[in-house]
Amino acid sequence: MSLNPALRASISADLDQAIADYKHFHRTPELSMQETNTAAEIASRLRALGLETHTFGGTGVVAVIENGDGPVIGYRADIDGLPITEDTGFDYASTAEGTLPDGTTTKVMHGCGHDTHITVGLYLAKHLVTHRDLWSGTVVMIFQPGEETGQGARAMLDDGLWDQIVRPDVIFGQHVWPVAAGDLHVSSGTAMAMSDCLRVTVKGKQAHGSQPENAIDPIVLGAYMITRLQSVVSREISGRDMSVVTVGTFHGGLKENIIPDSAEFKLNIRTFTEDVREVVLDRVRRIIFAEALASGAPEPEIEEMYRFPRCFNDPEETESFLTQMEAELGAEQVHLVEPSTGSEDVGAFGDDIGVPYVYWFFGGYSPAKFEGGVTPPGNHSPFFAPDDVETTLETGIRAALSAVLSKVGKDRA
Amino acid sequence: MSLNPALRASISADLDQAIADYKHFHRTPELSMQETNTAAEIASRLRALGLETHTFGGTGVVAVIENGDGPVIGYRADIDGLPITEDTGFDYASTAEGTLPDGTTTKVMHGCGHDTHITVGLYLAKHLVTHRDLWSGTVVMIFQPGEETGQGARAMLDDGLWDQIVRPDVIFGQHVWPVAAGDLHVSSGTAMAMSDCLRVTVKGKQAHGSQPENAIDPIVLGAYMITRLQSVVSREISGRDMSVVTVGTFHGGLKENIIPDSAEFKLNIRTFTEDVREVVLDRVRRIIFAEALASGAPEPEIEEMYRFPRCFNDPEETESFLTQMEAELGAEQVHLVEPSTGSEDVGAFGDDIGVPYVYWFFGGYSPAKFEGGVTPPGNHSPFFAPDDVETTLETGIRAALSAVLSKVGKDRA
Amino acid sequence: MSLNPALRASISADLDQAIADYKHFHRTPELSMQETNTAAEIASRLRALGLETHTFGGTGVVAVIENGDGPVIGYRADIDGLPITEDTGFDYASTAEGTLPDGTTTKVMHGCGHDTHITVGLYLAKHLVTHRDLWSGTVVMIFQPGEETGQGARAMLDDGLWDQIVRPDVIFGQHVWPVAAGDLHVSSGTAMAMSDCLRVTVKGKQAHGSQPENAIDPIVLGAYMITRLQSVVSREISGRDMSVVTVGTFHGGLKENIIPDSAEFKLNIRTFTEDVREVVLDRVRRIIFAEALASGAPEPEIEEMYRFPRCFNDPEETESFLTQMEAELGAEQVHLVEPSTGSEDVGAFGDDIGVPYVYWFFGGYSPAKFEGGVTPPGNHSPFFAPDDVETTLETGIRAALSAVLSKVGKDRA
Amino acid sequence: MSLNPALRASISADLDQAIADYKHFHRTPELSMQETNTAAEIASRLRALGLETHTFGGTGVVAVIENGDGPVIGYRADIDGLPITEDTGFDYASTAEGTLPDGTTTKVMHGCGHDTHITVGLYLAKHLVTHRDLWSGTVVMIFQPGEETGQGARAMLDDGLWDQIVRPDVIFGQHVWPVAAGDLHVSSGTAMAMSDCLRVTVKGKQAHGSQPENAIDPIVLGAYMITRLQSVVSREISGRDMSVVTVGTFHGGLKENIIPDSAEFKLNIRTFTEDVREVVLDRVRRIIFAEALASGAPEPEIEEMYRFPRCFNDPEETESFLTQMEAELGAEQVHLVEPSTGSEDVGAFGDDIGVPYVYWFFGGYSPAKFEGGVTPPGNHSPFFAPDDVETTLETGIRAALSAVLSKVGKDRA
Repeated sequence: MSLNPALRASISADLDQAIADYKHFHRTPELSMQETNTAAEIASRLRALGLETHTFGGTGVVAVIENGDGPVIGYRADIDGLPITEDTGFDYASTAEGTLPDGTTTKVMHGCGHDTHITVGLYLAKHLVTHRDLWSGTVVMIFQPGEETGQGARAMLDDGLWDQIVRPDVIFGQHVWPVAAGDLHVSSGTAMAMSDCLRVTVKGKQAHGSQPENAIDPIVLGAYMITRLQSVVSREISGRDMSVVTVGTFHGGLKENIIPDSAEFKLNIRTFTEDVREVVLDRVRRIIFAEALASGAPEPEIEEMYRFPRCFNDPEETESFLTQMEAELGAEQVHLVEPSTGSEDVGAFGDDIGVPYVYWFFGGYSPAKFEGGVTPPGNHSPFFAPDDVETTLETGIRAALSAVLSKVGKDRA
Repeated sequence: MSLNPALRASISADLDQAIADYKHFHRTPELSMQETNTAAEIASRLRALGLETHTFGGTGVVAVIENGDGPVIGYRADIDGLPITEDTGFDYASTAEGTLPDGTTTKVMHGCGHDTHITVGLYLAKHLVTHRDLWSGTVVMIFQPGEETGQGARAMLDDGLWDQIVRPDVIFGQHVWPVAAGDLHVSSGTAMAMSDCLRVTVKGKQAHGSQPENAIDPIVLGAYMITRLQSVVSREISGRDMSVVTVGTFHGGLKENIIPDSAEFKLNIRTFTEDVREVVLDRVRRIIFAEALASGAPEPEIEEMYRFPRCFNDPEETESFLTQMEAELGAEQVHLVEPSTGSEDVGAFGDDIGVPYVYWFFGGYSPAKFEGGVTPPGNHSPFFAPDDVETTLETGIRAALSAVLSKVGKDRA
Repeated sequence: MSLNPALRASISADLDQAIADYKHFHRTPELSMQETNTAAEIASRLRALGLETHTFGGTGVVAVIENGDGPVIGYRADIDGLPITEDTGFDYASTAEGTLPDGTTTKVMHGCGHDTHITVGLYLAKHLVTHRDLWSGTVVMIFQPGEETGQGARAMLDDGLWDQIVRPDVIFGQHVWPVAAGDLHVSSGTAMAMSDCLRVTVKGKQAHGSQPENAIDPIVLGAYMITRLQSVVSREISGRDMSVVTVGTFHGGLKENIIPDSAEFKLNIRTFTEDVREVVLDRVRRIIFAEALASGAPEPEIEEMYRFPRCFNDPEETESFLTQMEAELGAEQVHLVEPSTGSEDVGAFGDDIGVPYVYWFFGGYSPAKFEGGVTPPGNHSPFFAPDDVETTLETGIRAALSAVLSKVGKDRA
Repeated sequence: MSLNPALRASISADLDQAIADYKHFHRTPELSMQETNTAAEIASRLRALGLETHTFGGTGVVAVIENGDGPVIGYRADIDGLPITEDTGFDYASTAEGTLPDGTTTKVMHGCGHDTHITVGLYLAKHLVTHRDLWSGTVVMIFQPGEETGQGARAMLDDGLWDQIVRPDVIFGQHVWPVAAGDLHVSSGTAMAMSDCLRVTVKGKQAHGSQPENAIDPIVLGAYMITRLQSVVSREISGRDMSVVTVGTFHGGLKENIIPDSAEFKLNIRTFTEDVREVVLDRVRRIIFAEALASGAPEPEIEEMYRFPRCFNDPEETESFLTQMEAELGAEQVHLVEPSTGSEDVGAFGDDIGVPYVYWFFGGYSPAKFEGGVTPPGNHSPFFAPDDVETTLETGIRAALSAVLSKVGKDRA
């Protein structure tokens, strides 16, 4: 069942303003768990709609739209930016700066497109509030901080979210993605990968660079660890099972002629199943400890930084969602796809209370960007940003409204 | 021929003050080429001796002690500290801070003992000035900045040192070393290693950490480079030829789930001969470029950061020096040793103008520190500092005076 | 539709003899493309059934069972053994020997279970011949040599198989597998991996082991190649795409104190899609050539040894096969599974002439072997052989007959 | 003191025959400890001189030339060939074959020049026997088998050599070397390296090549071990200390699509001092065991294959030798050089009974071979053989006679 013409008209009427709002958020990204201004602005706009706002997890914002009897639906949008120097060339490109937890100053960019998520979430709320006649029930709007660091959902939940806010019957959420604007992609069952982050402190022994025989060289040791870790995916896991082990950072040494006494690297691990995850984690630890032994080095420290939980779309709800989206957008715009190797903490909102959820992707690039088999820049690239903002936002808003109204819309079957 | 008793008495009388001065310099180290306060203090003390001071290379200080006819002797002391956090536990340990060229703030320590060099140099000058009756000739005192970075000698030379200052017939210099206080160690011919520093920028292609297939991973590439570089020393150079290839720093990546677009490491290379040096440099470059090819990566950048020149003690002058020191300190205190793998830019002062030089090491630790075959902390260790400051400084001053006076002393043969 | 009771009775009646025949073939394996005795025995038994036999590709045997009008069905069984020393402990274990193409003598074992394939194929032929009343059409029995080396199907095709023998409408084949005896496993679409074998000759320069500086060490170079090749699967291919790169052999050097002038290794590559295959092959070549550059070595030689083609079960025929097998064996015995990473050249028989095919797996171990989550030895293990030979062979014969008769059986719908 | 003119004349007169004998031995090399024919021929020729021969260690031959009162001098020549396919192109090149201990058939070559050693030894004996008037004392001629494998000296000693044969006061020996024919090279003190050989059995777990997740891959493990071992020389040993770690053989796997259950490699280690040797052996073991841990593999086996002892030229005897050779050959032909990284078991003959020895190198190539800085093929190369056989042998014979007569010659000082 497609959206009521009145809603379609409202979406169209507000689209120029939505684009302007998007560009504003694009210009002003903030780093994970530091989204103070972003959260304040979201809360301010929600209050302007007459809604009461609640804060969870520091910079998480929640508003409950009550509208009579009916199901309770959750909708989640994440709001944080990334330490990336934007290189899109757009006139609304970000020049914002931020400070990482280790004190490093960095440029900040909405390099994962959460600015579209904020915008879509705010217009979802607006259209629901201004068309209360078309639906009946309750919608919980969740604006989550710190998705990039895997902290935000956990922080909101640990701050008592579901103790204080009405629990939904189903939760929806979506992510802008490097597929054609106007399209939706969704998986049934496993939708995104689990993600684990480990911080490894490689310990050695300092000496002058001309005297390696008096040192235990943590940079050479780290290099052997990293080359050895390649064998986890290549040799320890079946070619048919998804696993990715990425060393995203490596830092050691201040001076070229001093062998430092330690180095540090951070690992990110992606898997689809708990079994594979356990094997990968075991092999990673085994290799790191054994390589330290090979160097006669002190035992390295391995610290678990975070774990992104599973993102498992309820198959039944996904089927219902697919039907609804095909009705709203046309069957050729809606694609049932293989799971993504990316990770998300959206699943925690549902899994914590045993509530089903559906999380999908909406396209961010005009079809011309894919001509000749080209793949446009993906999320976390300094070039990642929708080129067809209008279609991107319109599709996101239609999808969100349509999913929510499939549950609480008055004229639904 | 040993030192005149009047000089020995002066050395003893001033020793307590010399120790106090040493501790002052130890507390106030400055990073290479930033030795503003140190240079100012040295100049001030030289002027207090009635000497005119000259500045070369920014923070280099030169004073010429003229004292009638006779040979011209150069004496060089280096004055810079290191970005090391001192861990000696001494009550005069440094808590100074400095800012590296890349903007990083760091603790600074006289972790290479240049504070003893400054002190010895100042007292050499003082004793020469106050005992003009005992010698005839000219002594050029050179207080050099930036030895640790290989910049200082070059900077002073490029600033016109030997165009403006009288050229010596021979140059002396010495370094405190983890051998027994009271002892001197010296090599004939090659005395220290050549040292080259390269900065390597490993170029890749950024992508999300879950999608290595869309990235060219500069951290994995860097790790393969570093493990491959081990084969230069192990396979490309004869076991009988000295070569050391140290990767002292490796830095790449800001976030564990973003594969960065580049990483950087710095290499330090030590060799004794020009032939071996050329082979090592060639193989290092070959490996770095080939490993980039193996990754399908853009060509890496290799920047030559500095080159420490040879330090080649003139054999004839070394023989004469040995004879002199055995007379002054006793034969059992003076050791003819194999060359050190460490590097120095002192040689540039002589090699630039074809003047012979002798560079030796004087001990910094009481004999008890070596009991049971133990080796005390070496230069550039956070624990490196003389424990028997008195013997260390006294020996350094006696050796310096004795070497200089072996050339310009009035009662010499 | 399940098998006619008369056929079921014949299968049961012959089963003891089939087991005895199986053990005979198990005791007498021959290496790939050298199956002279095996082929002679197969041909002799087929002729004993009154069939004419044809030879293709040296040791391939074909017989056509003509039985009136109707479809033409192909059935393929492979017949070669492996250079493995059997370690099953069975009293009918092989002690056979063979000579590899390089002249090495080796023990030979039916370590991939082709002995069950021969036996099942011969009894399929026998039951078809002795029950001509129950079917109408033509069945082409193909006993293929050299499957293990990927040579056999190609050799038979190049020898004019489909020019001289009637072309089938559909082809069937099956493989014994480490799953429960009595069960069938089948995939729709991609059923097994493509497989490429490369032989790499690493070229170096010989020298005495004490003088690596005069050598180009092909063993160290090969080791760097192999560790570097781990990054193909770990970094160049998406975690969601199947790829396996195995170095199955590495041989270099005669004497520990002579650095040899070359070494050789063989690679086996498994992929499911042509796109991934091309990327893997490109990256493997790139790494091998670049690592040789890193060593300053002569260009290595890469020889393509063989390529196993795709094994792509026709989806429509697979659906029909599943229905038939569920009727014959019971739905709980028949499993639609993910593709195997193993490889097969059976697909070439169909793909060469555009004929659909279905290739499935039948179980070889009693269920007790899987208790407690244990996985029994897989194909190519020295321990691989059915423990419940009776159920294994009976199921294989029933599945073969049932698949063939689903097309040419008289009482079919 | 140079050789008596009568001796010089004899040497010249016999030179053509010596060259013919050399070519005979060159054509008929035998592998280590299998020198049956070679030993028989040597013994036969010694008996033809009227000497009694003794056998030690299977194929070792000893003859004592007694000639009145005076010192007892030992002279040792080694006699075994190598498993190398000769590629010199000489018309007297070897085409001999032999069988290695593992059963492999191989071509055999005097690729280390022991054929010159045999020839020189036989003519030394002949000239001593035919010129008994010119000397007084005893000379013990030792023709040693199995030098290449480090077995021969030990075998002769363990067979009671010094229990049954008169013990020398000093022992001489020499080796043909890729330096100019006519020249001698000798070191004082450490003359050649110690050499250790280890055989490493890497244990894994066999599986099909498409299923690395079920295997423990001993080839990948071995490759990581070998790349990791590069760090022993590059990081664990001072750049000033000689160490060489060569993996001369690596063998694993029969078939590219079977991951084997084990692989084997052999290491050769060269060091000059016992301290460095201990560190290298410790680090090699540490790395091999730790890498197995990193793979979750069974503990590898490390077997000590042999150890070549030190070769330490007595400094006093070396000084005396230098003086003698300069008198005989001219000072410009005699070179005091750095120790060689090659190894020898000659030292055991002296060290076992505390007797001093001098071991030197005599040139094997005409000076033209070194023009333009070219280095001709070294020992163990398939191209290694003297091109100027006449000068090579004449110099070897003169050096041997001169060294021996410097001790027992009648007209010596």
